[in-house]
Amino acid sequence: MTKPSVKQVNIKRVELNTLNDSPDVLAVEEPLEIRLAYMVSGEVTEKNISVTMRTPGNDFELGMGFLFTEGIITSEKEVTNIRYCESVDKEEEKGNVVKVTLHEDLEFDLESLERHFYTSSSCGVCGKSSIESVSQNCKILPKDNLQVRADIITGLPSQLEIDQTVFKHTGGIHATGLFDLKGKLEFMREDVGRHNAMDKIAGASLMNHEVPLSNKIMLVSGRTSFELVQKAVMLGVPILCAVGAPSSLAYDLAKENNLTLIGFLKKEKFNVYCGAERIKL
Amino acid sequence: MTKPSVKQVNIKRVELNTLNDSPDVLAVEEPLEIRLAYMVSGEVTEKNISVTMRTPGNDFELGMGFLFTEGIITSEKEVTNIRYCESVDKEEEKGNVVKVTLHEDLEFDLESLERHFYTSSSCGVCGKSSIESVSQNCKILPKDNLQVRADIITGLPSQLEIDQTVFKHTGGIHATGLFDLKGKLEFMREDVGRHNAMDKIAGASLMNHEVPLSNKIMLVSGRTSFELVQKAVMLGVPILCAVGAPSSLAYDLAKENNLTLIGFLKKEKFNVYCGAERIKL
Repeated sequence: MTKPSVKQVNIKRVELNTLNDSPDVLAVEEPLEIRLAYMVSGEVTEKNISVTMRTPGNDFELGMGFLFTEGIITSEKEVTNIRYCESVDKEEEKGNVVKVTLHEDLEFDLESLERHFYTSSSCGVCGKSSIESVSQNCKILPKDNLQVRADIITGLPSQLEIDQTVFKHTGGIHATGLFDLKGKLEFMREDVGRHNAMDKIAGASLMNHEVPLSNKIMLVSGRTSFELVQKAVMLGVPILCAVGAPSSLAYDLAKENNLTLIGFLKKEKFNVYCGAERIKL
Repeated sequence: MTKPSVKQVNIKRVELNTLNDSPDVLAVEEPLEIRLAYMVSGEVTEKNISVTMRTPGNDFELGMGFLFTEGIITSEKEVTNIRYCESVDKEEEKGNVVKVTLHEDLEFDLESLERHFYTSSSCGVCGKSSIESVSQNCKILPKDNLQVRADIITGLPSQLEIDQTVFKHTGGIHATGLFDLKGKLEFMREDVGRHNAMDKIAGASLMNHEVPLSNKIMLVSGRTSFELVQKAVMLGVPILCAVGAPSSLAYDLAKENNLTLIGFLKKEKFNVYCGAERIKL
């Protein structure tokens, strides 16, 4: 049922005033609709929560991860079933609609969902229609004595690169990697949406009962936004690294929540924006 | 009233096993709420349309451009006023809420807005809660005899780079540039959100009464997604160039709408994904 994550096309390559036909491979971008099924007064109710433009693959992880990092569920135990919806109207929607069923005993606070989330959102920020709704109840990370050597940090990007298979073929996709404290890559996920790559990591970690990720390091291939920091904090990751720059709000939120935020991570150097006490020379 | 687009912070730089304090500059990311004021049965009605995480600057352009590329307005003439909302509840919302007032004679189709757009969206895709709502009514570009020399295309990125002042300081921001058919940069806009950078271009062009942009070339600093192609098509731009890769859906939508889509644009070469008849060697 899973759709391919790359698509072959024929393009023209222009170089030195010549134009040649050539095959090429693109990262697939397709909408994924997340539907929530939950009980209201003894009746099953369904609600379309979000459409996110994602790269097919690990869709169930994405569905579960999204619900968790957006604060709609607080544990994997609240979910009893995830599957592709079969009752879709159109051919192109097949494999693009994931239904997540919540535990029937769950007191589901729809009002809170509406307030924090509104009927529609995919990337956690974009779907919200008031400034107040943007900021979630993040759980401030507890003080820890966790320390990681600087050379372990600088060793992370090369490991992520080895595994970035879709990126290798297309050059057009984000990745998030989850590492242990010794810097060993546990697994990675790719997606055209950077928030989706992180939500897939979240979902996979939840399914493995490994959240909170208090003993992990996360690396994203791009820049860090408010939204990515928010998701990392929801997951309880103490150290978030990025190959690119953070935004001002990513910095503010990381600082407020006791997260170590690293940017411009290269083979021999990096910037620590906050939480430098977790870095050992 | 306009807020700064960069923020100074103190960070630690780690290099060759040393850690040094250093000042640094980050691209500002802050929520912008777009409110629409329109007449319903002779009464002014206000609706929060969207919150987008943006870099302050050119907020009115962003507000107007967003409404146009999302299909909520079809012309700049439908807008009678854009200003910052003064009646905001909290200090931090000052300068972060833009109110767009529509012409009082306008028949505003709220139902269509709800259907295509729902109450909340910022990036055009993310806020939507059904797959059907993702795809807008794009206007297929008319057949034209427009042709641009390949060396004009390869000359675009260096011009954009010269103007990318926030990027130069922060390394963490997207840009969109608008060029004439001779490859001269008319103006550019920067934003932490790539869709916002394009919407700012859209708004500025609308305010100058220059839409549709049938005689322009657009260049984006990153990759092209479905959403960016959709916005470009709404603006009537015939040629969309990107420094990075397109997604599969960006390719599909460009092809369907007769847009010339260029990617991996470098000093001496580029890929033409579709619409190669507009490129002259």
